Amino acid sequence: MEQRNVKLTVAYDGSGYHGWQRQTDNIITVQQVLESAIVKTVHHPINLRGSGRTDTAVHALGQVANFFTNTQIPTEKLYHAINSRLPDKSIRVRKSEDVSEKFDAITSAKSKLYRYAMFNHEEIDPRDMRYCYHYSFPCDANRMSEAAKLLLGEHDFTSFASAGNDRECNIRHLMRCDVSREGHWIYFELEANGFLYNMVRNIVGTLVEIGRSHWAVEKIPEILAALDRKEAGFKAPAEGLTLMWVKY
Amino acid sequence: MEQRNVKLTVAYDGSGYHGWQRQTDNIITVQQVLESAIVKTVHHPINLRGSGRTDTAVHALGQVANFFTNTQIPTEKLYHAINSRLPDKSIRVRKSEDVSEKFDAITSAKSKLYRYAMFNHEEIDPRDMRYCYHYSFPCDANRMSEAAKLLLGEHDFTSFASAGNDRECNIRHLMRCDVSREGHWIYFELEANGFLYNMVRNIVGTLVEIGRSHWAVEKIPEILAALDRKEAGFKAPAEGLTLMWVKY
Repeated sequence: MEQRNVKLTVAYDGSGYHGWQRQTDNIITVQQVLESAIVKTVHHPINLRGSGRTDTAVHALGQVANFFTNTQIPTEKLYHAINSRLPDKSIRVRKSEDVSEKFDAITSAKSKLYRYAMFNHEEIDPRDMRYCYHYSFPCDANRMSEAAKLLLGEHDFTSFASAGNDRECNIRHLMRCDVSREGHWIYFELEANGFLYNMVRNIVGTLVEIGRSHWAVEKIPEILAALDRKEAGFKAPAEGLTLMWVKY
Repeated sequence: MEQRNVKLTVAYDGSGYHGWQRQTDNIITVQQVLESAIVKTVHHPINLRGSGRTDTAVHALGQVANFFTNTQIPTEKLYHAINSRLPDKSIRVRKSEDVSEKFDAITSAKSKLYRYAMFNHEEIDPRDMRYCYHYSFPCDANRMSEAAKLLLGEHDFTSFASAGNDRECNIRHLMRCDVSREGHWIYFELEANGFLYNMVRNIVGTLVEIGRSHWAVEKIPEILAALDRKEAGFKAPAEGLTLMWVKY
């Protein structure tokens, strides 16, 4: 029987999971729950490759993963079949597509967009607390936007990589780094050809230091040049982060 | 020392709580968690009176409660002090006010507004699932709005009260019953001088039967006249419901 390579687009609420990546111990992760549902659907073991590991409490609207299978379930029905075997609606497969055998969710990715949501006012709606960073103090989105522009382009982002970053090369191309305010909300949108470990959250924390006027806008090039994590700002909390899409 | 009567306006994410009302067994409720934080703030036992009991998984943006205290903490600081003693942000006190000794959160209430959120499309964002009723099938908001208008005014709402409703009189005045669609979302807003047990959720379930053309719009007066719960529709799930405000 011919092997099919199936690409899935997946949304999840990360608040109940210890991140994407399957763990060896008794910890619930998105990959593990999704793999179980796929195995129940296709009736054979699979190896699910996600485009990247999201951390504990990080969300996704457009995570991408692929796996090989010999199931005969038609592509357009496959995502329904998997969804019906997922334990609840905290993980939803949005789309299933047959792709070339060469497609790999990790290595074929051209760019990714992350969105970070910050609530910048004291009176947070308790229903939002799993989905944003609650920061009550005055924070200037225009200053942050100005600083964000200085991060655009190709740089060695070592200063924004947390310990545990195991990439061989820390040069990435940041194509988008937008900061915008909508009422009490501040949104950060970052698109790059790849991200270092905790890079988005470390950039957001750094921009917040600038937004609250603790640091000057001009500190950005200095931080980049230092190639030292200690020069950048704090790591913003995981709750605010959502992987929006992956481009191939 | 003079006794003060303090009115609190409270928001909470009901998804982690077994409703508002303190329970005798080891079940976590909003009232219990809030009372503990208040006792830690004012240093004496209190009796917190909520405007009404919200069910398990029901949310609030403007629940109101009152308690008597002899604390000397100024009113404008009291809600901060209580918030700082709440275990997390799933419950937030929005406001604290000194009110007349005659004020009682239950008996002084003139009207309440409940909002019910329904997501009417297959592809739900997993992050919304605790905060709405996910109903994928076609549902006509205009039909529901037309039917909703037939519920306005003073009626005996017995047909919309779940078993366990222990009110002595089931006549209520429904001042607002709006249904509106915004994209894939359908919102129901109901204001009344009081609500019977599960009344909002039973009305929403009934309107959905009409919205999906299972029942005619004209069934509403028949249901009201029957004074029989069995004539009305299903009880819509708790997740979609939020107590927005209480008027005094």
